[in-house]
Amino acid sequence: MPLTRGERFIESLRDGRSVWFEGKRLDDVTAHPAFQGTLDTIRKLFDTLDDKQLQERIGFKNEATGVYAHNAFLVPYEREDLIRRRAAFAHWADETNGVMSRLSEFARSLVTGWYAARHEFTPYDPHFADKITRYYEHARDNDSFLTTALLDPQIDRTKSPGEHRNPDSVLRIVGETEEGVIVRGAKMIATAGPYAHDFLVYPYYRLKETESEYAHFLIVPANLPGLHIVCRDSFAKFSGDDYPLSSKYDEMDAVLFFDDVLVPWERVFLKGSTEGVWKLRMNETAGALAFHQTVVRLLSKLEFVTGVSVAVAQSIGADGFQHVQEKLGELIIQTESIKGLLLASELQSSRSEAGIELPDLVPIETARNLGTRYYPRALEILQLIGAGGFMQVPSRLEELSGPLKDLMHTYYAGKQVGADDKVRLFKLAWDLAGSQLGSRHELYERFYAGDPVRTYANQYVNADKSDLERRMRQFRQAHYGKEAESGEPTIGRQQLSFTPQ
Amino acid sequence: MPLTRGERFIESLRDGRSVWFEGKRLDDVTAHPAFQGTLDTIRKLFDTLDDKQLQERIGFKNEATGVYAHNAFLVPYEREDLIRRRAAFAHWADETNGVMSRLSEFARSLVTGWYAARHEFTPYDPHFADKITRYYEHARDNDSFLTTALLDPQIDRTKSPGEHRNPDSVLRIVGETEEGVIVRGAKMIATAGPYAHDFLVYPYYRLKETESEYAHFLIVPANLPGLHIVCRDSFAKFSGDDYPLSSKYDEMDAVLFFDDVLVPWERVFLKGSTEGVWKLRMNETAGALAFHQTVVRLLSKLEFVTGVSVAVAQSIGADGFQHVQEKLGELIIQTESIKGLLLASELQSSRSEAGIELPDLVPIETARNLGTRYYPRALEILQLIGAGGFMQVPSRLEELSGPLKDLMHTYYAGKQVGADDKVRLFKLAWDLAGSQLGSRHELYERFYAGDPVRTYANQYVNADKSDLERRMRQFRQAHYGKEAESGEPTIGRQQLSFTPQ
Amino acid sequence: MPLTRGERFIESLRDGRSVWFEGKRLDDVTAHPAFQGTLDTIRKLFDTLDDKQLQERIGFKNEATGVYAHNAFLVPYEREDLIRRRAAFAHWADETNGVMSRLSEFARSLVTGWYAARHEFTPYDPHFADKITRYYEHARDNDSFLTTALLDPQIDRTKSPGEHRNPDSVLRIVGETEEGVIVRGAKMIATAGPYAHDFLVYPYYRLKETESEYAHFLIVPANLPGLHIVCRDSFAKFSGDDYPLSSKYDEMDAVLFFDDVLVPWERVFLKGSTEGVWKLRMNETAGALAFHQTVVRLLSKLEFVTGVSVAVAQSIGADGFQHVQEKLGELIIQTESIKGLLLASELQSSRSEAGIELPDLVPIETARNLGTRYYPRALEILQLIGAGGFMQVPSRLEELSGPLKDLMHTYYAGKQVGADDKVRLFKLAWDLAGSQLGSRHELYERFYAGDPVRTYANQYVNADKSDLERRMRQFRQAHYGKEAESGEPTIGRQQLSFTPQ
Amino acid sequence: MPLTRGERFIESLRDGRSVWFEGKRLDDVTAHPAFQGTLDTIRKLFDTLDDKQLQERIGFKNEATGVYAHNAFLVPYEREDLIRRRAAFAHWADETNGVMSRLSEFARSLVTGWYAARHEFTPYDPHFADKITRYYEHARDNDSFLTTALLDPQIDRTKSPGEHRNPDSVLRIVGETEEGVIVRGAKMIATAGPYAHDFLVYPYYRLKETESEYAHFLIVPANLPGLHIVCRDSFAKFSGDDYPLSSKYDEMDAVLFFDDVLVPWERVFLKGSTEGVWKLRMNETAGALAFHQTVVRLLSKLEFVTGVSVAVAQSIGADGFQHVQEKLGELIIQTESIKGLLLASELQSSRSEAGIELPDLVPIETARNLGTRYYPRALEILQLIGAGGFMQVPSRLEELSGPLKDLMHTYYAGKQVGADDKVRLFKLAWDLAGSQLGSRHELYERFYAGDPVRTYANQYVNADKSDLERRMRQFRQAHYGKEAESGEPTIGRQQLSFTPQ
Repeated sequence: MPLTRGERFIESLRDGRSVWFEGKRLDDVTAHPAFQGTLDTIRKLFDTLDDKQLQERIGFKNEATGVYAHNAFLVPYEREDLIRRRAAFAHWADETNGVMSRLSEFARSLVTGWYAARHEFTPYDPHFADKITRYYEHARDNDSFLTTALLDPQIDRTKSPGEHRNPDSVLRIVGETEEGVIVRGAKMIATAGPYAHDFLVYPYYRLKETESEYAHFLIVPANLPGLHIVCRDSFAKFSGDDYPLSSKYDEMDAVLFFDDVLVPWERVFLKGSTEGVWKLRMNETAGALAFHQTVVRLLSKLEFVTGVSVAVAQSIGADGFQHVQEKLGELIIQTESIKGLLLASELQSSRSEAGIELPDLVPIETARNLGTRYYPRALEILQLIGAGGFMQVPSRLEELSGPLKDLMHTYYAGKQVGADDKVRLFKLAWDLAGSQLGSRHELYERFYAGDPVRTYANQYVNADKSDLERRMRQFRQAHYGKEAESGEPTIGRQQLSFTPQ
Repeated sequence: MPLTRGERFIESLRDGRSVWFEGKRLDDVTAHPAFQGTLDTIRKLFDTLDDKQLQERIGFKNEATGVYAHNAFLVPYEREDLIRRRAAFAHWADETNGVMSRLSEFARSLVTGWYAARHEFTPYDPHFADKITRYYEHARDNDSFLTTALLDPQIDRTKSPGEHRNPDSVLRIVGETEEGVIVRGAKMIATAGPYAHDFLVYPYYRLKETESEYAHFLIVPANLPGLHIVCRDSFAKFSGDDYPLSSKYDEMDAVLFFDDVLVPWERVFLKGSTEGVWKLRMNETAGALAFHQTVVRLLSKLEFVTGVSVAVAQSIGADGFQHVQEKLGELIIQTESIKGLLLASELQSSRSEAGIELPDLVPIETARNLGTRYYPRALEILQLIGAGGFMQVPSRLEELSGPLKDLMHTYYAGKQVGADDKVRLFKLAWDLAGSQLGSRHELYERFYAGDPVRTYANQYVNADKSDLERRMRQFRQAHYGKEAESGEPTIGRQQLSFTPQ
Repeated sequence: MPLTRGERFIESLRDGRSVWFEGKRLDDVTAHPAFQGTLDTIRKLFDTLDDKQLQERIGFKNEATGVYAHNAFLVPYEREDLIRRRAAFAHWADETNGVMSRLSEFARSLVTGWYAARHEFTPYDPHFADKITRYYEHARDNDSFLTTALLDPQIDRTKSPGEHRNPDSVLRIVGETEEGVIVRGAKMIATAGPYAHDFLVYPYYRLKETESEYAHFLIVPANLPGLHIVCRDSFAKFSGDDYPLSSKYDEMDAVLFFDDVLVPWERVFLKGSTEGVWKLRMNETAGALAFHQTVVRLLSKLEFVTGVSVAVAQSIGADGFQHVQEKLGELIIQTESIKGLLLASELQSSRSEAGIELPDLVPIETARNLGTRYYPRALEILQLIGAGGFMQVPSRLEELSGPLKDLMHTYYAGKQVGADDKVRLFKLAWDLAGSQLGSRHELYERFYAGDPVRTYANQYVNADKSDLERRMRQFRQAHYGKEAESGEPTIGRQQLSFTPQ
Repeated sequence: MPLTRGERFIESLRDGRSVWFEGKRLDDVTAHPAFQGTLDTIRKLFDTLDDKQLQERIGFKNEATGVYAHNAFLVPYEREDLIRRRAAFAHWADETNGVMSRLSEFARSLVTGWYAARHEFTPYDPHFADKITRYYEHARDNDSFLTTALLDPQIDRTKSPGEHRNPDSVLRIVGETEEGVIVRGAKMIATAGPYAHDFLVYPYYRLKETESEYAHFLIVPANLPGLHIVCRDSFAKFSGDDYPLSSKYDEMDAVLFFDDVLVPWERVFLKGSTEGVWKLRMNETAGALAFHQTVVRLLSKLEFVTGVSVAVAQSIGADGFQHVQEKLGELIIQTESIKGLLLASELQSSRSEAGIELPDLVPIETARNLGTRYYPRALEILQLIGAGGFMQVPSRLEELSGPLKDLMHTYYAGKQVGADDKVRLFKLAWDLAGSQLGSRHELYERFYAGDPVRTYANQYVNADKSDLERRMRQFRQAHYGKEAESGEPTIGRQQLSFTPQ
């Protein structure tokens, strides 16, 4: 029997890549138990594209080949296309309860966006449009699993790229050959790194003009010689009964070491242009498509935490207390406000110059910024509701059918729910709020969009403030009967004393 | 020259009503300086309905009379009608920067809603439909200024209506005549009471079946004999230069004393039915139309506070500090999330059984609940940005052109803004965040929708939780391979011991 | 060579107890790797009592035997004794950075308190004084490791003890014999349960008079037949390099099942007296001594989190950013306020009727209540500072000396700190803020003192409010020139209408 | 009859000073009604020094003259002296419920401190010690009312003193004569300015060495020619029944304009030394004495807000609700933690090199930083408890005995409290939380200690972190078996590549 699409994905990871984990280089990442739950989850999701019941929802048909590609690769020309993109994102997110944050839809959407807006980059490299077209088609037709690796190692946050004592502290091109460029340095955090096909690599922060040596946009195959994928500790657990999330959804985070890696020219999209890479980073087409996905996923996750919290409260009869209801109400307010913003972003979509239909970025940014505070608060509420109950479960679910089973069923029962369901529920809640996977997700939601101090500040800096200003102008007119003074103030006495005699 | 519509409104308030203020009964509320700024504001807003440029936006034409009525009276049959209602609300709100919370649009919308859904109340009184129709037409055609008076005096919050030592602590009907019912008790808080035409009076909290003596819905004319309108202290200020808001927007709050007031039968809509008044209170048509207005106004106000905060930060060069930008970003996140929810409520509108197009109440409730925390936080941010600057303004704006004017223009100047504008701006900001009017608005936003502990709890209690439950059910199926246990738990050992021998 | 005191402790746990873990009954808890790190920690702490350098600090000499007992057993007659108690608590807490919350000092202090105040319980049982004296001496002289088990299983929080469908839901005495009482039910959460000698068992919440069947105070040996100690999952890790805390400090939490356990009379201190057990629970001598210990430990832990946070910030150069400094300042404010309160509690100590010198409970309660909010916030700050850096460490510390060691030392270096130290530090921080042990401690600090909604409310309810009332009385006298009206209000008109004719 | 001490104070203000208020220069500040309530309060406080019952508590006897001086002038040589200082501060604060923040005790304490530590300033001016001694004795013996004026006008916060377009934006010396220096510029915020005798003037922020032109320390008499005291709007109210605080405690804030003011040499203490003025600003003796006073006052105020909040809750029966109790508990936690810190600062006092007994500054700084968040939260809690009730009071208290008195007493009654007391209480609460005076105090508590972002940061920056570092060092030793690496990191491979060939 031929391999399924998901199986082909697994197979494709045996490509000679250099993955470092628990002190060793793994020969075959797919063979290590720490990765199997997660890879199994991805395998099943990939298979949805060949499922007759689902494929129309998850993907779109390449009329030439008859094969479906994931909707993350769908270039939207109509609002309807945005809805189709959302439907695909929502399905995968719901299947994984928003706990798999990097299923490559985000990075695929970036590529789709740069492809759709490719002509904007011609000023920075005349071959950009051709190269990105070829890459987009390749990725789309091969189910490429992509991820980003944008940040420099966190060595000294007071230094800008050019200021480090050690010039290798920031990724740079140290040489060129006919085949490509030689790259040295490191990049973090490549979530899903050990099982991604390609890494999108470009600077996250704006470079100064003098820092062109760090200005490049590369898409780096994971198995290039000299590229080391260094994993953090695994948070995977092997008992699905006791850790239903950690057993299936531990996305690995990795740091990439580039030990003089030769990246071929076809994967070098920009080079040496600080302006070019900043335009790429801020490109609205790519950003709108990719961030749209993140909000769909966030909503799925917040609804999941809400569902778990409600179920926990009900299982112990706490849902009748007003202060618990208040907290559950807060969770519902969270999900409803994200939902409203998602809807607003889609219904206020607009056409770009290149004819691409883009969701409105303002509600998307708003939702992302709310999310950085909502998610930690949601976990806090879950903790406040379940309280000591999380410590009051047997070490293994199987004990409920063991020697003490009668006692267990008596003492672990809940209000109108049996011990079996209640213990499962509390273990699930702990996996969300207390396991290493859960803690990592709290961190992720706080920071994946960037340092929240900065993202909040950016929402102000980047906002179109003309409406606010108009409002203030009207106020002045209505209340003081005059237009605002022009910007330049009079300076009173001093003005006079400055006058030369 | 005939009176304008606004002037007729003023004129109509000389109707013999009994308004108590500063220890005296006012003969003519329109003549007292404490009310003039506010009444002047309302007069101008009323006149907008006869302004050819605006009347299509603010109202709709009664084809029979050719006269425009305010859109709060517009019964919406299409989504387009909701947008028209919003446009009218937004215009008045923008004109007053959301600081006039009770321009009667809320109460008018309730009446419009009950009228539109009138047949739902036939079970509780066969004359309801006729009476509310006549009242609706009267109010619509006479620009009636309506307000609500729903709460019992705050005497002892641990007591339900029937438990008070003094039976008059809760409004009740103490007698009947051919003309109507005799009412005794008090109601609070009648915002705009001294210059309203009619009070909507019904219980705010659900009554027990045994408390039918307190169950009624009356619409009470303000000038009935025995009805006393007791004002709090005035927060009005008389210098528009120094207090641009307090000089124009002090909505008075009043307590109503019913000293055996005879309310005529045509204004007695429900009587003795605890179920009927609760259906009225919770009526979705009325609620959706009225709460929609409150969100439009909230948005206007939050945008205003944001505009002022941005201007204050800019005027002293604080807008370049990251921690100030972070706070301004938070303000923008506030307004954008309310905007998204407002849009969502309109775009997810649906048709009621009676054929009325209603905005979705869930995003509306969400926005209202967010508002109770957003507004106090917005004022806090404004304080944190302006800081001591609010105390660093001359006592009167006119001093800027007085004997010390040169010094004043030197030392009160800002960054790229003259002393005149800067002092105005800081005085405006203080009026928002520090005047009695400002403090009253903080209180208003926290509480106008009810005790926030309770409104948050209600958002949980009233939520449609089927989606959350479905999500949990799917999780159990996917992860544990089985449906949830049925509700009833097994009880382990004890189950056995219950078995009779 | 004879066993050390710590070794004797380990040895003593092989006593036939029934510990359930990972689906099995453990034959020997000391032999299972999940417990070894923790037991090793305790062993070393026990040995401090025989360390000539430390024993004067940790304990006091039993002049009869020449053997030192832990200061938790020291009955304080002078303020100096309180300081000695604190010194002992602080040493053990500092050794374990406050991360071992139950080293039995808390429960030992309760026993010491009840012993010191034993005559207060004579009304409830004439043998109480004798029994507790014998028990106290036994525990003191045998280094008994004690813990509490106070809460009923969390089955249905809306039910009081007598209301459960299943009468076994709450621990109760189901029979008596000559040797003792037969106990059935469950108790939670017995932290340190698997390696404690004795459990203090009594009701946490106040019982109604009708619930005397649940009113008892027992001290239950861990190895009684029918007593099952059911463990949660282990959070222990085996690599001390990667998880320096989880490898040594995982205190196990357990639920106790009493399957008709015979508790001998000498361990039945109170029985059937709802008033007696409530007096025991609220006993000020026991409470003051025990809660004093909890604050000493809390301070140690907060200082540790602060130390780690400062080190993390310094290691990446983030300590120069004002918003990071602000957060570190907040951590220091936390520790200083707890320190101030601890000092205040000691310096305001007072003598009880029985001649015992007790720390002031008000600052202690204040510190505990602050702690429930401080600790989660401290972890949040640590997360906000370290951010993605926690995901940017190799899976094993040993990799720093592995094949990629040069690259590792380049890219994992910090600002003025080598990769080795930086990776260690970030792994430690993650163990605090992200491991299961870390999450469990967040939960612990929130809840160990009880539901924080309730403990805050209690601080109001139990407060001596006479000062506040005096202040208000003086205000009234000074400002209104008269004493307050007496409590009973006049009722105005209605009073007259009540008068019978 | 001779004038009392308080009357002499009032008399002394008729000294030709130039106070600008409501557009006019006041001839006699004591004659304007806006100042009379406040001056009357101060007059009575001054008289306490001649009250036989109180003078030992408030002051100390000048043995030479037999006259008492205020304890703010007491140089503490023993801990007992600190307690005496606190007793005096507490008495005045309690008399005014902490709502008078500037009764000159703060500024007097600064002067006392600089006097006590006078020899530390000899390096910056050899006459400093003599001058400050003469000034201290003068102020002490004449009941001088002092205040500070430290900040530059808030023109452009991005500019340091030397960067302003207009050189007069920062106070500077523009000339010298035999009598003294000529000063030009402005200073803010001089709280109590219109009725202070002298202003302490020096830079609040650290100057760069190049900015010596702004480096001076002057004590400026209020009635110097060319010195204009420009008031903000008055927040005074004239009805003590309705506004018990605003009618007595409105401390005026003023900006000082120095229109080429000649300050005599005896009042020029430092000049041209950026280091000298920074040492003065940071002087520990002065700081410890002055900030000690601010904490005493803060505590008094927080207790007052707590007392009012408790009384409000009780008056309407809300004190039985758990969520209200939780909030009241939080208020008690606030006051208790400040109390603990105050005690800790005194009991950990230590002797300076000059032999002065100083309270520990760390708990004092901690309390001040807590205060900036506690006070706004306390007002929020008061709002949340009183809610709409604040709007449900008659405009004038006298109405309770007016024509509607029977109805008023019925409907404004509370739970076990008559209408009279309840209305008084709610008016008092509104005066705290809603009046302009109340809003100004919220601002004051947030900012009087400086920008809280900065003061929090400073608590970190200035902290003695050696304990934290020792703790981390011990951890490393205990857990990793070695000392920390020395600061300098190894740099891995790159280190080699730096080696010259």
